[in-house]
Amino acid sequence: MKINSDFLNLKDNYLFAKVGEKTAAYRKAHPERRVIRLSIGDVTRPLAPVAIEAMHRAVDDLSRKETFKGYGPDRYCYAYESLLESIKGSYARKGVSLSSDEIFVSDGAKSDLGNLLDIFAKDNTVLVPDPVYPVYVDTNVMAGRRILYAAANEENGFLPMPDGAEADIIYLCSPNNPTGAAYTKKQLAAWVEYAKARDAVILYDAAYEAFVTDDSLARSIYQTEGAKDCAIEICSFSKTAGFTGVRCGYTVVPKALVREGTSLNRLWARRQSTKFNGVSYVSQMGAAAVFSEEGERQIAENIAYYRENARIICDTLDKLHIAHTGGKNSPYVWMKCPGGKDSWAFFDELLENADIVGTPGSGFGKNGEGYFRLTAFGTREDTLEACERLRKYLGD
Amino acid sequence: MKINSDFLNLKDNYLFAKVGEKTAAYRKAHPERRVIRLSIGDVTRPLAPVAIEAMHRAVDDLSRKETFKGYGPDRYCYAYESLLESIKGSYARKGVSLSSDEIFVSDGAKSDLGNLLDIFAKDNTVLVPDPVYPVYVDTNVMAGRRILYAAANEENGFLPMPDGAEADIIYLCSPNNPTGAAYTKKQLAAWVEYAKARDAVILYDAAYEAFVTDDSLARSIYQTEGAKDCAIEICSFSKTAGFTGVRCGYTVVPKALVREGTSLNRLWARRQSTKFNGVSYVSQMGAAAVFSEEGERQIAENIAYYRENARIICDTLDKLHIAHTGGKNSPYVWMKCPGGKDSWAFFDELLENADIVGTPGSGFGKNGEGYFRLTAFGTREDTLEACERLRKYLGD
Repeated sequence: MKINSDFLNLKDNYLFAKVGEKTAAYRKAHPERRVIRLSIGDVTRPLAPVAIEAMHRAVDDLSRKETFKGYGPDRYCYAYESLLESIKGSYARKGVSLSSDEIFVSDGAKSDLGNLLDIFAKDNTVLVPDPVYPVYVDTNVMAGRRILYAAANEENGFLPMPDGAEADIIYLCSPNNPTGAAYTKKQLAAWVEYAKARDAVILYDAAYEAFVTDDSLARSIYQTEGAKDCAIEICSFSKTAGFTGVRCGYTVVPKALVREGTSLNRLWARRQSTKFNGVSYVSQMGAAAVFSEEGERQIAENIAYYRENARIICDTLDKLHIAHTGGKNSPYVWMKCPGGKDSWAFFDELLENADIVGTPGSGFGKNGEGYFRLTAFGTREDTLEACERLRKYLGD
Repeated sequence: MKINSDFLNLKDNYLFAKVGEKTAAYRKAHPERRVIRLSIGDVTRPLAPVAIEAMHRAVDDLSRKETFKGYGPDRYCYAYESLLESIKGSYARKGVSLSSDEIFVSDGAKSDLGNLLDIFAKDNTVLVPDPVYPVYVDTNVMAGRRILYAAANEENGFLPMPDGAEADIIYLCSPNNPTGAAYTKKQLAAWVEYAKARDAVILYDAAYEAFVTDDSLARSIYQTEGAKDCAIEICSFSKTAGFTGVRCGYTVVPKALVREGTSLNRLWARRQSTKFNGVSYVSQMGAAAVFSEEGERQIAENIAYYRENARIICDTLDKLHIAHTGGKNSPYVWMKCPGGKDSWAFFDELLENADIVGTPGSGFGKNGEGYFRLTAFGTREDTLEACERLRKYLGD
């Protein structure tokens, strides 16, 4: 038996696992200190009341013979129509029209980002922004694919544009994780044009779209003309509605997306019907509720809460004269490590001196070296306390 | 961009999707008829009260800041320790001792069976029983692997034994889907010996182990000495506790399982931490509850209910002098199509004449041709009514 030796080309540790291990070791060594985590992008606000009510009702359904639910409906790869209608409604409010069989409900964007690669040949070249969410790179290393990088840096406002790279699969993440930078609709049009000219496919990670307030910025790549011919969009309820522990996401594969005479929508449907059995009925009902009118109002409150946290962090960094981006149309603040320190050195120092856990920028790619990511997903109290500690530690 | 052309080698349709489509078309054409589904192995009994209570509590946890849960714990690939302890307890009652980091909680056995293939090289040869759950074949076709078949037929009691095939990855499913045949511990010892001699790995699908009553039959491959050196076991709460709509399973990758100097446990942990973000907190809490003492008692009642359905179906077939197996240590009854008909012809006839949906044996492999699978997962009323219809249609 032979193992997949491509796994041996992975770095030792998944970034967030390493951050978690270091944090656990520090806590064990210093049980008396109160460590504040502004590292992994995990939410802290309770779920919206509409979601809670819908989930209780769904659990009740499972308790009675008459309303019991087993596997989800075959027709849409195990997604319930009420959830698909909710998602279509949310897209319609962004000016995007989709049909139910273009939407695939899953247990989260991370699963889809990994599993989507099943439908592509091994000998495609992928283009990945640097820095970016490490899953794009790691999943392609596991599959033995050639990876090119598009540098995101201060010069281009952390928003790389097409530069003629011979890529077949192009990852875009907007608003970006970790830099918080977000593409305008006009910039995305250039990416769409480039992808179509090369017969490439864009994997567009829109996990943070709910944080976009500026109207010139895209909330979906399908707000750009022609994107349905070349782009798959990956979305999640995790950050939009605090579902990191509930597990529900969705991916759009338009029926217009055809390569080598084959519908990618059909390929993905076949992949999902063969290797997946749908999302918990309880999670699906909770998700359907948050895209109702009342639900949208309730989740907007939570997003406003996190946005205010981001503003507090940005203000603090401004006062400390530390360069930073993001935090406006994004829950992530991307700061330069003070004193030209490298990312892991600053991670260790900040933990040791201020009991704050952040995420080292270098963990997102080599262009992330010298940067550091803070998230706005903490509680207000923790965010304020962390900013106070930053002031004490980094102030004059 | 190149698609994964191995997908083009798949049969047109996933078996259960085809059964579902044919059923939907029939219902549309005959809205006045009451169709009874004894086809896909989906459960119908409501969840055990302990699971319902635990899930309501978990939803409440998500409604309050103080008890809110985001991503599951990093340490065990997002599984909660209370669930891992429950699973370890369940194994201990079968005489199998496991550590927490040998158990990986997932959204179901189907996902794991597909995703596990990521950790193996493409150029392994797989050995798959025929007939068997079609996912084993389809997932390997998608990956372009060479597939050998081990014939399961009347001669070997539908339990193929090692015959010297040069296989690297060996699928075993016991109690078997679709035939209901189950291996004895002694028979599994022969498979373990064979796998070890070849440095092969066994993927042991134990999704139906809860239906085993005969003590000579295995409920886990780890009840066989030496299995931890060569076997991965895939389990699910779907059939054990009626979780087909709740989505929770678990896979055991022993730390003793090493190939080419690499721990498969570490490879799988890396795969899961990179392409997966854990199971719904609500589902995990429900699952943890069913393996409590009271939970085990409650789920045993449901399993007894389905077992009685199987007995009713077997009795009916006996009276009709139709040859069949399974239905004793398994929820599946595997019958010979009357009059030597082929499987899909009998499917169409049974639907047309008795409004009963079953699953054509040929959908599980060529040795399934001429057979038909009925499940015991229906309601008592439907099972009795279906048997009455069978008697009318197939009786003298």
